[in-house]
Amino acid sequence: MNDLIKHFNLNVDLAVEARDLVRGDTGQEIQGVEEQVEQMEHIKITTITIKDPQAVQIMGKPIGTYVTIESPPLKINDPYVKDEIIEAIVKSMEILLNKRLSPQDTVLLIGLGNWHATADALGPKFIEYSPITRHYAQYAPEALVEGMRPVSAIAPGVLGITGLETYEVVKGIVDNVKPALLVVVDALAAQNVERIGNTIQMSNTGIQPGAGIGNAREALNEDSLGIPVVAIGCPTIVNAAIIAHQAVQRYCREEGAFFNDAQASNSVKEVLSFFGGSLQVTPKEIDDIIENTSRIIAMGVAQSLFPGISSEQLELYAT
Amino acid sequence: MNDLIKHFNLNVDLAVEARDLVRGDTGQEIQGVEEQVEQMEHIKITTITIKDPQAVQIMGKPIGTYVTIESPPLKINDPYVKDEIIEAIVKSMEILLNKRLSPQDTVLLIGLGNWHATADALGPKFIEYSPITRHYAQYAPEALVEGMRPVSAIAPGVLGITGLETYEVVKGIVDNVKPALLVVVDALAAQNVERIGNTIQMSNTGIQPGAGIGNAREALNEDSLGIPVVAIGCPTIVNAAIIAHQAVQRYCREEGAFFNDAQASNSVKEVLSFFGGSLQVTPKEIDDIIENTSRIIAMGVAQSLFPGISSEQLELYAT
Amino acid sequence: MNDLIKHFNLNVDLAVEARDLVRGDTGQEIQGVEEQVEQMEHIKITTITIKDPQAVQIMGKPIGTYVTIESPPLKINDPYVKDEIIEAIVKSMEILLNKRLSPQDTVLLIGLGNWHATADALGPKFIEYSPITRHYAQYAPEALVEGMRPVSAIAPGVLGITGLETYEVVKGIVDNVKPALLVVVDALAAQNVERIGNTIQMSNTGIQPGAGIGNAREALNEDSLGIPVVAIGCPTIVNAAIIAHQAVQRYCREEGAFFNDAQASNSVKEVLSFFGGSLQVTPKEIDDIIENTSRIIAMGVAQSLFPGISSEQLELYAT
Amino acid sequence: MNDLIKHFNLNVDLAVEARDLVRGDTGQEIQGVEEQVEQMEHIKITTITIKDPQAVQIMGKPIGTYVTIESPPLKINDPYVKDEIIEAIVKSMEILLNKRLSPQDTVLLIGLGNWHATADALGPKFIEYSPITRHYAQYAPEALVEGMRPVSAIAPGVLGITGLETYEVVKGIVDNVKPALLVVVDALAAQNVERIGNTIQMSNTGIQPGAGIGNAREALNEDSLGIPVVAIGCPTIVNAAIIAHQAVQRYCREEGAFFNDAQASNSVKEVLSFFGGSLQVTPKEIDDIIENTSRIIAMGVAQSLFPGISSEQLELYAT
Repeated sequence: MNDLIKHFNLNVDLAVEARDLVRGDTGQEIQGVEEQVEQMEHIKITTITIKDPQAVQIMGKPIGTYVTIESPPLKINDPYVKDEIIEAIVKSMEILLNKRLSPQDTVLLIGLGNWHATADALGPKFIEYSPITRHYAQYAPEALVEGMRPVSAIAPGVLGITGLETYEVVKGIVDNVKPALLVVVDALAAQNVERIGNTIQMSNTGIQPGAGIGNAREALNEDSLGIPVVAIGCPTIVNAAIIAHQAVQRYCREEGAFFNDAQASNSVKEVLSFFGGSLQVTPKEIDDIIENTSRIIAMGVAQSLFPGISSEQLELYAT
Repeated sequence: MNDLIKHFNLNVDLAVEARDLVRGDTGQEIQGVEEQVEQMEHIKITTITIKDPQAVQIMGKPIGTYVTIESPPLKINDPYVKDEIIEAIVKSMEILLNKRLSPQDTVLLIGLGNWHATADALGPKFIEYSPITRHYAQYAPEALVEGMRPVSAIAPGVLGITGLETYEVVKGIVDNVKPALLVVVDALAAQNVERIGNTIQMSNTGIQPGAGIGNAREALNEDSLGIPVVAIGCPTIVNAAIIAHQAVQRYCREEGAFFNDAQASNSVKEVLSFFGGSLQVTPKEIDDIIENTSRIIAMGVAQSLFPGISSEQLELYAT
Repeated sequence: MNDLIKHFNLNVDLAVEARDLVRGDTGQEIQGVEEQVEQMEHIKITTITIKDPQAVQIMGKPIGTYVTIESPPLKINDPYVKDEIIEAIVKSMEILLNKRLSPQDTVLLIGLGNWHATADALGPKFIEYSPITRHYAQYAPEALVEGMRPVSAIAPGVLGITGLETYEVVKGIVDNVKPALLVVVDALAAQNVERIGNTIQMSNTGIQPGAGIGNAREALNEDSLGIPVVAIGCPTIVNAAIIAHQAVQRYCREEGAFFNDAQASNSVKEVLSFFGGSLQVTPKEIDDIIENTSRIIAMGVAQSLFPGISSEQLELYAT
Repeated sequence: MNDLIKHFNLNVDLAVEARDLVRGDTGQEIQGVEEQVEQMEHIKITTITIKDPQAVQIMGKPIGTYVTIESPPLKINDPYVKDEIIEAIVKSMEILLNKRLSPQDTVLLIGLGNWHATADALGPKFIEYSPITRHYAQYAPEALVEGMRPVSAIAPGVLGITGLETYEVVKGIVDNVKPALLVVVDALAAQNVERIGNTIQMSNTGIQPGAGIGNAREALNEDSLGIPVVAIGCPTIVNAAIIAHQAVQRYCREEGAFFNDAQASNSVKEVLSFFGGSLQVTPKEIDDIIENTSRIIAMGVAQSLFPGISSEQLELYAT
């Protein structure tokens, strides 16, 4: 699998999957990586902390904390499960922020991705469902419920549509608006189809736009922007190369045939033809999945940023 | 492969691929199936005619003519290639209609698919780019260029959104509007990723909505509707099961391993997890592909239905 | 005003406004028209019943019952007001249906209007927020909560986009689906700007698509379709001619000048230039108004059609 | 009228209308304001130059050049008229830029307005139809036609949706991207309905977002951004107060009644109720008008920025 990932210049977006890839079949602990699992009634929360440069090297992900919320298959929109996920998002925000956000601090929400492409619209949809208050705070404070902080939001689009790097857009806004926190939401790629729509990852390490598509570009993180960045993502696709490769590997294991990793990568490449690593696998119901997940993330983040305000009232401030 | 198709209840939408599956590696002729190939400067046109019930059985497709227009990879939007495709659509319409449409006959366009899901929006987008004239013919004939026929159009949505079978919607409109011809456009599934966005199939056999997703529902064809139906489709997805299966098969061939078809289908099924046959593979650029292809089909159909009227003028009647 | 309405071929969509126009300044009762007013905590419900052909002539509206729900200005989205409106919709549905709908009867929802034009998108948005169950009832009854009836829905678009009369589309579907009830939602025109977004009218008299724009076309009502039709509408525009005319009239009254109705209509016509009666007045925030109102109507109708099922669960069936 | 404009805090977006308001019925020249008129076959081009601070005071608009392209009513989409408009846009760009743009200079396009509100979506739609090349210039120069400059684009949304001032977003991007020119497109308000969809104004004076709605906010102009700014706008609405006021004035003139301006403003205000100056008048066909106008402006700007490249090729770079 690691060969394939290099071959197609793929990105491992989820820390729990990076851990699985490193561990392989051994299941042993990884030096410099801490892990904690909490099982709630419906959902499971895994907190992975990457602690030192050596672990960064091994895991291929920056130092920091990664919280993964996993819900039962296709159950994310079940009212009971949903409430637990929202609760988990609020709690994880607290852990990741670590008291670095004061009640009146300004927050900027960024919804990454392409609103014209269903599976990539998670970020823009998150923005749509999030309460926006900064303009009221400025021009009509009486329209706010007491204690509401200023929150603004933008979906900067993707390089292929705007010709602008996400960093160029976001950096400029941060410099002018001077928020105390950035919350960035983006669609992720998973290694396993069963994660699509069932997993939410939250981290304090920022995000590298377009990382999954093989163009290393300037990251959105505390180093580059000078403020804490909470990145929230949900897998909405699996690369087709990975699925094809998994099928070959599983076939070999089950059929008792020898598995030649390099040859497998090669066969996969031929099947994918000239589209190569740009082929994505999504469930037919991806539009519903995006819709539900973006709403849930928006509600969780809103309840974290506006504690004590009912979700009905918060909805009044969504655009 | 045939096992896999049964296993996941997949549909082979393209006649040229059905032919390839039947022929297998032998390449021999199929009884009751005629084929003609024409090579233009940039594109290739293959006309397959299924002539008798035995051929229907073998090919798994109804009696009739299937024209397949294949353009070079990723070149469909090249101005030269585009003009050739539009020309080929006009010519194919003529062959499929076989003089059964008079110059003043009313035509109804149907854009199948879900406008909320990028890869399924080909039909609705086709409608958006098509000139609509029937209301002018009725209420303001002076707004039409001399000789324009009445054309109306609807995108009936999908069962999952409306709770209505496509047939229920279309049959009702046909009964009330009494068009002389139905042109139905829908996104198709291919067996090979390289066909995505590069192939257009036109047939006079009608269409079975949702066929590819395993629910046999009432067809839109001359039998069920009482008027000629030209179906136009373009592959926008490949089922993930097919890609995974192809990778296993190719690996076995190239690695010299024995290929156990049943075991391959089984391994694929396990990899696809609970999503099963509903996982679709699309290129990342699927929104551009849908945009371009729907425009080209709309232009080709418009030039066929309104001969002698310039594309600039036709655009004035698009909504 | 009556001159102006004839002059521009305008339609008086709201029964309460038709009543006001008939009454003029006298305020006296109208023969054959009954009226009942109920004041709830936040909202006011007026029920007007047109009882005989003479009243039809005077009021310019068909025999039947018209319930008008009026909420305080700009308060429709206030949680308390919202709950009261939803309650009023449920109660009014009961009155209008008069026990003619059994618990398992199929219902068809129709969202009239143009989804590309903000102020006209009320109907299509209503469809988007309504729970759709008929396909589950047919193919996966286990996915439904016990007792959920089959509901389907379509937004047929407008004549100018499809070239199809609404009646042609709806009649066909009704013939094929055979619902026991049609619920039709459409944006209305008001005579007073303060009604925009604050008034909901429900009636059992059906609806005449495009009536407000001067093209008398086949109505959607029990006569034409053979099943009960509940029409629900909310004013989203006022015709610009009406506002201009009101300003002239008010100016004359306040300035003590003589008011020449014919000359006023004429001056208004000149100001409106070649656009004439097609100029519409909307508040800048019309997109929010449409969003909120369509959601509230969808919730009210859903709670009426699926009694005893929570709004959280109903939302799971919205598309 | 001037009273009314103050009363409702309205903005006069078009220089030709500001001139008419200043001149009133006298038609005399305005000190410090130069005007030149050119009549082409179908369209009329008026160039107004505001030359000194006193003229700024009188006209209520900054120093600079304002080119107004007027086409015959409802004819903007006629192929012949369209070509003339595009030609006029190219020529006006040249005049406004005055050789300050070199062939390889980077250009940033800004589409102001709210994409959720039909009449305000001119700017975002302009972006959609504009060729974007900067990312190719950076990552895949071989995908560009020889000589294509880097162009990027963003539609920053409106304050009410993002909580961000347009200036905050644009200033940041300009600082990071360092373009040599900003082209800003926005929907304008006119004083006369016959201008809706028939007038395009281009100026080198920049733009004041939200100016028409009464919130003076930081302008986008050469002073604030440090680079030349070409602002392009097209009236898509008229304020309802203006239409009502015009009707009163015209009525008084035609009826021979005394016109009391203050009382007229007052009557208008009462008719507009609590919506006040936020009521907008648009033709029912505003979605088509926005569609056509945004395309024409995009084509004109594209042909100006990419001289010698065919419109068919330029369309390949639009998103």
